Order: sequence, then structure tokens, then C-alpha cells
Amino acid sequence: MTETAAQPVAAEVDAWLARFDSALTEGDTAAAAALFTEDSFWRDLVSFTWNLKTVEGRAGVKDMLDHTLARTKPRGWRTAEPPTAADGISEAWIEFETEVGRGRGHLRLRDGLAWTLLTTLYELKGHEEPRGAGRPHGVEHGADPDRETWLEAREREARELGHTTQPDVVIVGGGQGGIALGARLRQLGVPTIIVERNARPGDSWRKRYKSLCLHDPVWYDHLPYIKFPENWPVFSPKDKIGDWLEMYTRVMELNYWTSTTAKSARYDEAAGEWVVVVERDGQEITLRPKQLVMATGMSGKPNLPEIPGMDVFRGDQHHSSQHPGPDAYKGKKAVVIGSNNSAHDICAALWENGADVTMVQRSSTHIVRSATLLDIGLSALYSEEAVNSGVTTEKADLIFASLPYRILHEFQIPLYEQMKERDADFYDRLEKAGFQLDWGEDGSGLFMKYLRRGSGYYIDVGASDLVADGKIKLKNGVVDHLTEDAVVMTDGTELPADLVVYATGYGSMNGWVADLIDEATADRVGKVWGLGSDTTKDPGPWEGEQRNMWKPTQQEALWFHGGNLHQSRHYSQFLALQLKARSVGIDTPVYGLQEVHHTT
Amino acid sequence: MTETAAQPVAAEVDAWLARFDSALTEGDTAAAAALFTEDSFWRDLVSFTWNLKTVEGRAGVKDMLDHTLARTKPRGWRTAEPPTAADGISEAWIEFETEVGRGRGHLRLRDGLAWTLLTTLYELKGHEEPRGAGRPHGVEHGADPDRETWLEAREREARELGHTTQPDVVIVGGGQGGIALGARLRQLGVPTIIVERNARPGDSWRKRYKSLCLHDPVWYDHLPYIKFPENWPVFSPKDKIGDWLEMYTRVMELNYWTSTTAKSARYDEAAGEWVVVVERDGQEITLRPKQLVMATGMSGKPNLPEIPGMDVFRGDQHHSSQHPGPDAYKGKKAVVIGSNNSAHDICAALWENGADVTMVQRSSTHIVRSATLLDIGLSALYSEEAVNSGVTTEKADLIFASLPYRILHEFQIPLYEQMKERDADFYDRLEKAGFQLDWGEDGSGLFMKYLRRGSGYYIDVGASDLVADGKIKLKNGVVDHLTEDAVVMTDGTELPADLVVYATGYGSMNGWVADLIDEATADRVGKVWGLGSDTTKDPGPWEGEQRNMWKPTQQEALWFHGGNLHQSRHYSQFLALQLKARSVGIDTPVYGLQEVHHTT
Repeated sequence: MTETAAQPVAAEVDAWLARFDSALTEGDTAAAAALFTEDSFWRDLVSFTWNLKTVEGRAGVKDMLDHTLARTKPRGWRTAEPPTAADGISEAWIEFETEVGRGRGHLRLRDGLAWTLLTTLYELKGHEEPRGAGRPHGVEHGADPDRETWLEAREREARELGHTTQPDVVIVGGGQGGIALGARLRQLGVPTIIVERNARPGDSWRKRYKSLCLHDPVWYDHLPYIKFPENWPVFSPKDKIGDWLEMYTRVMELNYWTSTTAKSARYDEAAGEWVVVVERDGQEITLRPKQLVMATGMSGKPNLPEIPGMDVFRGDQHHSSQHPGPDAYKGKKAVVIGSNNSAHDICAALWENGADVTMVQRSSTHIVRSATLLDIGLSALYSEEAVNSGVTTEKADLIFASLPYRILHEFQIPLYEQMKERDADFYDRLEKAGFQLDWGEDGSGLFMKYLRRGSGYYIDVGASDLVADGKIKLKNGVVDHLTEDAVVMTDGTELPADLVVYATGYGSMNGWVADLIDEATADRVGKVWGLGSDTTKDPGPWEGEQRNMWKPTQQEALWFHGGNLHQSRHYSQFLALQLKARSVGIDTPVYGLQEVHHTT
Repeated sequence: MTETAAQPVAAEVDAWLARFDSALTEGDTAAAAALFTEDSFWRDLVSFTWNLKTVEGRAGVKDMLDHTLARTKPRGWRTAEPPTAADGISEAWIEFETEVGRGRGHLRLRDGLAWTLLTTLYELKGHEEPRGAGRPHGVEHGADPDRETWLEAREREARELGHTTQPDVVIVGGGQGGIALGARLRQLGVPTIIVERNARPGDSWRKRYKSLCLHDPVWYDHLPYIKFPENWPVFSPKDKIGDWLEMYTRVMELNYWTSTTAKSARYDEAAGEWVVVVERDGQEITLRPKQLVMATGMSGKPNLPEIPGMDVFRGDQHHSSQHPGPDAYKGKKAVVIGSNNSAHDICAALWENGADVTMVQRSSTHIVRSATLLDIGLSALYSEEAVNSGVTTEKADLIFASLPYRILHEFQIPLYEQMKERDADFYDRLEKAGFQLDWGEDGSGLFMKYLRRGSGYYIDVGASDLVADGKIKLKNGVVDHLTEDAVVMTDGTELPADLVVYATGYGSMNGWVADLIDEATADRVGKVWGLGSDTTKDPGPWEGEQRNMWKPTQQEALWFHGGNLHQSRHYSQFLALQLKARSVGIDTPVYGLQEVHHTT
């Protein structure tokens, strides 16, 4: 574990920073690269690269600096608090500035050389967010016959923006991602409209099945600027998080267009702007933003399988995202195809409501119990204990960001080995019931599955006991076809059904691009999400960062935002700064724009 | 200024606490009292007295202990952090517990004896608020055929409470006071209904004149549980604070009955409950709570003067609380009677909107410029600097509470002398324009005026310059009568008027009691607010605490709550604990129930 720094650690870190600063100031990129270990990683979030980029080894460091150093002009490297040392690694929180901004970072030294370096842009000079001592005054003192009150200004903005004035940014999708990004852009003074098809902010949660609660705990879920209060539940019920998002949207003064659908978008290269047609309360409106952000859900479009007989089946059938909840299915026979999170949640709610439920498992699934995940997987960074020991949410986000994706699984594997041991009886019972388990191809567990493919797991909040006890019936195998009243498996088994739920996952987010813009743009942008880990549903080559998320894409002025609440919070900062820089005309040459290796 | 503690200070405080603990444990109230200075103050908020009570000197301390010690059983006195010493005074943050609860306090020692002691009840044992590590889980893991979701539980509660089940507490008035108290009671699990005549939470702010902003800065204004974010304006515009209150009411899950008027209330002594008749959306409903809280605004009912000719005046005339704002009065002649906060704000807004405005000053007014008040009057406790130096809002509240009302003016006078000097030119200009200034009868300024009488001042946000420049015309004197189109002064001056605004203040809050319950109860409870300072509008004898606020009154189960946002936040804690104790049957013998010296 981490120990408090002894003086030598501080001296070691200071010496490294001084040498680094000196090499950078002299433009000696080889000398700077020589300060890194052979197996080093430098992850930069926007501050050097105007990109999210991880480079590896001395060659990677040198290449990045060769392309970015001259205009970045980094300086003022210093520690933000006393460094610590443990297990041969010295760790330091650092601060620095560049020609246009201020940065924060994290450094790990091994034998006096940088093993990992994280650099992140925190704010743009001259465009600091108005907060703390710089917060707005609110009232304008003095007498002014032309005074416009706060309410009048808000009402005027709502009246004009999108009609007589144009937003700089349009965000398609007003879930947690769009809302968090919208809040940051509002604070940065970037005129933005969020387009949301539902009638109220939070409806994307409210409309899901009624027993749904967040699977991530409260410490992991804060939005920017306003934290959940200390009486907030560990796992938010869906309607409660919906209410929070609604109030947040209101008090953060977002321009949030409800009951609005994005119909089409086209990039006008000559004008350098998008032509986005939306339908708002039945009326078509054309918006012309400079930047377009897709925040339509990292899960992308629902994957509805094509199974022979779907057209003859007489019961209810729908994708899990359309499932209305169990109320109508008491005493009915339900077949849920799939065995990940949604499948389990839906099966359990149906069983609780007195349905006869069968889960069809098509491939192995990774299962972790919620309490175990909390204790072993998250508590060091996101828990009451972490907060009490000084690991604020902001700090936890940076610590997590400082671990390179390339070696993240190495940190994860031992945690999942602990979980496996702790819950050995639980897993035994599940396997005895015929459930096919896995732990990810390299045993790295849930979070890596999430980052690589966004699927393939269930965080157990109770359904697994129902499966182990046979209360939720389990059928392994492949669906062959549907009849009028049953699901028939390839082994001939017939599963009588009044309801079939296709908990069959989601496609890549660029599917939304195909719908909204065109296929060519979707293909040019390519697959969204995943690391290129060369594991199931995350084909190589290695990408180094999440594909297309929160960073420039092959389509100018098109961006993707989203993920869980943690990602919506943390990465919205970097996306917002990229958008702000473009909005005020700061030069933003992108280093290492990602190549596209997969279209879906 | 305060210095960091040297070891001797810690030893001095520890020794005092040990002697105090020992005397209390032995029941030796004389020995305990001997640990106080002759001129000492012990302020207790609920922990010993089930009252808000300040006792003075050794005799006062002994009397309080003689009546409370045996059942309070205080123990575990300890410092919460290292004490400090400055100017011959040692200061310590302390913690302790009693038979039924846990307390926090503050101690000042002079020459080894207690000069001031503050003891406050923080929580009741076995009834701790669910927060931090004790927060609710949110989801109930496992499978349960009788599962009720969060939304179903909320909807059931809304359906049943006040109809098939009865609340323990009804709060009349859903402004900041009712909302803050309601939030604390919700966390304590006390079933509560807040009755509010407006259609939406926050409307009591929204409906006021349009240029209104809070006169207190953001650091002073936080509600419990959810702080304003760091981008919140220093002075909240009225509609923005309205929106915040609305969202707060929602996410704190208050049972808040909008568009509801309290029609009558009667205490059924035999049943030990109130019979409260309310009209909700046109329907009469009878509520039977155990406790009734008046949170109808510390200002009480509007004082509308009776002036001859009001019946013949043909223009608009209304009390300042009913003033719709300046929009309809462009180019019109307005006379505003009064020269306190509302009068100034209304005059300035009318002038900004092109009205011809005359302010009638009937008596001298205390004026402080907003920026000066912030810098000199508040910044030590409530400012960005205070927060950054570790003075949290909660700590600031306790520091402020630790200064005895009896000598509070002594701390205030030097601050106002500084303000007078800093803004000497400003005051010169005002006096030259004929404005009659005062600084309170003892020069103790604005906050003492607020505590003593709740009126008599203006926090200048710009109107004073208009007065000094003659843009707002000033007329000193007494109104004699109104004609069809003018206000006529006793000196014969005629002030032509299309509009007369009576910015003539408010009565005591027990006026609401007369309306809702009856005159006898209003008289029995007596005047609300004020300290008994024997200054204008605050007649003696000395009370020691705010009359009737947040503590038991002469009417069983009737309480008053309110004040500014600071008071609504801080004192709601103590009122909520008193109500909770009664709700769960904890014995709550009141020490020193206040006598009534004035009925209005």
C-alpha cells in the first residue's frame, strides 16, 4: 500500500520534473524520451495532442513530442502535493501549463524513470469556468434602465437559440451523457442545444423496466458540479435518478429540447457547419451548429435477431430495450433470449411478478455479485471509505485514467481472482444449474469486458439465485425458430411462450450515424467503442484508447459521447474543452487521429 | 488572529473538560458552575434543555444544571480537533454525548475558565440520519414477489398521507423555511406534509418584483444536504433560487402540497393532536398532525397603514409584498412610502423602468453597501476565502451560534465602524441629499437590527446612488392623507401619484396564528422574533434567544420556523430534532420555557 512520502521521494520526483522541464524547454525530445522506461506509457487527454492518446515506450514519447512540443510549449511542471512511494514505484500528482491552457496529471516513477505519465487539460487560459472566487455575481448592482433580469435573459435565450441565433454545438441525445456535456459547455459559455426525443429529462431511465436500479454505486455516479447528497442511496432507483437528471438539467440552465427528434444531418463543408433537421413538438426546425455530438447511448442501436417464425409468433415479442416490465405477464410463459444484465433483470422481475420464465443462454456469461464488486472492485477508488480518506471523485477519476488500457487487465485479474474465491459456493451452485460462466478471455473480468465490448456480463443483484434454484428456468443453446406459441431450439426443445424478450444487445454507435447522416459517414467513422484487444467482439489491432469516444473522428466536427455515469462525468470535461477551443478559434491540430479498422 | 495551538492550549482545554466531566458525573452542579467565569454564557441548543436557551453567569449555569443534569447524563467530553489560542482566549471544538443523543459544541476559555460554552444536539441515538456509510441501499437485492419499487412506494405515500394515514407534522408555508425543515424531517423519518398556497415550490420568490436578487451571498444561503454548486452566483436572482427550491423539494422527496391553503387549526388537547383544515385544489381536507409548525415567513403579515383618503385614491395602491414590479408604470408617477429594503428595491426598479419615483422616508434608515457588508461583515465566516481556509458552512453556523446574543453587538460595532469609514463619501452624499441615516441605536448595525426587529435597513445594491443623485426623489416626513391623485404630507407637500406602494413592513408572526387558530392562542404565544433588547420595535425585558423561534412555545405542539436562508438551514436542525424526539416518544422536559411579555 501507499506510504506517506519520505523526503527522498519528493526529491526524486522534483529532480525528474526538472530534467523533464529542461528537456522540453530545450526542445530535446530525445532527452525527454530518455526519461521514460522502455515499457512506459504516456497518456494525454487533450493537453498535448488535442486528442485522447496513449503512446508507448521511448519511441512513442519521442514521436508525440516531435509532433506537438513546439506549439504546446509546456512549462511550470510541479507537484501538487507531496509524492508517495510504495513497492518500488514513486507516485506524484502534478500540475503544468501549456501555451493555451493549464493541466493536471499523474506520474509514476520506477528507478528514477517515468513508467506512466498522465497529462490532462484542465482549463483554457482566458476561458476559465466561472466558479469559486470567479463565480458570477448574479445581481448587477447599480441602476440600469436597460436591465435584463436573469429570467428575461433565460427566456430570450430560449426564444432565440436555434431560431434567430445558432448554437455552436448540437448534442443528439439527452441522457446522462448529453446532460453532463451540456452542463460543462454551458459553464464554458458554448451555446448548445440538447435534442431529446422524450418528454422529460430522465425519461430514458424512467421508461425502462420498473425494478431497474443503477448497477454502479453512488460514489461512481456523480455528475459534474453537483454531487449527490450524502443521503443518496448506494444504488439509485431508476425513477429517482430520472428526477435528479431532470432537476440537474433545470438548475444548470441547459437548453434542452424535449419531445424533439433528430431527423437528418449533413455536414456543409464549405460553410463548416452541420445542417441538422429536427422535429420539435411536430414542427421541423433546421439547426446549423459547428459541431455535432452523438450522445445517443454507448450501446448503440438495439440488435434484433432475425429468427424464422418471428412473423408467425402470436404472443408479445420485443427487444429488451422496449420491454415494458412484468405487469402484464403474471401467470404467462416468458422466454428471454440472452443472459447478460438486461436478461437477468427482466427474468427476475417477471418471476417476481408470477410469470413462468425461461432464460435462453446462447454463450457463456461473466457474473459478479454486486456486493463483491463493490468491496473488491471499486472500493479503493469509489466508496465512502475512499472519500473519507481523501480520494475525491475527481481524484479517483484521474487515478483510474492514469492506468494505461494496455496493462489495465493486469491490475484487474487479481481482483477477479479474489472475487472468484470469495464467492466460490455461489459459482458452484450456478454451474450445477447448468449456467455457463466465464471471466473474460484473460480472466480480467467485468470492467475490461465493459471497455472492450460493453457486454457479456451480469452484476448479480439477485437473479442468479433464482437461476441456481431453478426458479428461472435455464436453457442453453441456439434458437432455431419460433412457432405461433413457442421458441424452438436447434436441439428440438420447445419452449412454450406468451412473451419473447430479445435481450440480444446493441450494435455499434455508428449505426445511429448511418440513420441520421448516411452510411458512408458511418463507415468512414467506423466502429465506436472497444480497445482493439483482439478478444470477442473487440477485434484488433490495438487502438490504445476507446474507439471514437470523446475525441476527433474521421468525420470533421462529429463526436461521440456517452458511457456510464463515470465516463459521462469525466470525459465530458475533455470533450467540452475540445469543443470550446474550436468555438473560440484556438488552433487544435490533432496528433494521432485514429485510423478506422472496422465499420461495425 | 487565531494561531495554531501550542501544546499548553490543548492541555488547558483537556484539563477543563476533565474537570467539567468529573463535576457533571458527580452531579456537583456548584463545582461545574465554578468552572465558568462570572461573566460567562452557556448557550444550549436542545442537548440539555430541550429548548434554545442561553444562561448567564455561574448562577445561571448552576440553575440550568440543577434542572437538567440528572436526566441528561452528559459524558464523553472531548476536543474534536486541536484547540487554538489568541488574545488570551483559548477556543476549542468539542464533542459529547447525552443519555439520548450526541452533541457538538464550542468552548472559549479565559484564564482557565469557560467564558462561552455552546452545546448543540446533533443526533438522537438510534435515530441517526441515514447518510454517508449509513445511506440507504436503494435497491433491495434478491428476489421478492412482493417487491415495491421506489416509485411505487413514493406514489403510495402520496396517495395515503393525509388521507388514510396522518402526518406527525404539518408545516404551514412552503418557502425556504418549510422546505429546509421538511427535508430534515424526511431524513429523520418523521411523516410530514408541507402546505403551500402557491402552485409551485419557489413561487414565493418568483412572484416578487422582477429585479429582486437575494441580498445575502451564496455561502450564507446553502440548504441542508445539497450545497449550491461552485458556479452558483454570489447573489441569486429570485427566479433562479425559485427553481433551486423546486428541484430541491423534488429530489428530497418532500410531501409538498401545492395550491393548498390552511383554513383553520384547533388543538385537540384530549387527543393530543391538531385538527387542521386545508383546502387543496378546491377540496377541503382535515389533517390531524401531532405537531404544527408555522413557517409562513418571519416577516409575518403585511402592515398596511390606515391613511385617510386611501378609499378615494384612484391610482394603484398596494403593500410592497403585493407589488407586481415596474412594467405597468413607465412614465407614471410613483410614491413609495417607506425607506427600507423593499422600498429601495422597488424605487430603483420603477426608476429603471422610466417611472417618476418619490420615496417617502418616515424615520431614519440604516444603509450598508452590499460589497462592504460582504467584505467586512460576512467574509470571515461566509465567503470563498472562509471555505478555502476550512470554515465550512456548518462550522461557520456554529461559530456564529457560539457568540451570545447578549454581547453580540459588541462584536458587531467595530465592524460597522469600519464600514462607516470605508464608505464615508457615500454616506456624505446620501446625507446631503436629505436622507436620514442611522446605525442602530448602539451602532451595532444591520445584523443586530435584523435579529432585534427584522427591519430598519437597506443593503445597498444601487438604489442609494439614485437617491443621492436625486433620480429617486426623497421626501422626509409623515403622510397626512391621500387625495384622488396624490399623497399629501403633514407639511402640506403634495406628491402627485398614479401609484402608491406601502413599503410599511410586517407584523409579528403570531398574527398568522390569530388568523389560523384564534386570537387567544396568538396572545398566549405572544410576539415572535426579537431579543428583548429594549431598542426600537424590540421591547425588553431581555429574552436571551429569539422570541418563540424554533423552540417550544406557550401553546403545546405549536412551533415557529423561518428566517433567512442561514437560519432556515441551521435552526431547522434543532427544530427537527425536537419534533423527532416527540414523534418517537423520547421524554423532552423543557427547561426555561420562555415567558410572554408582549402580544404583538
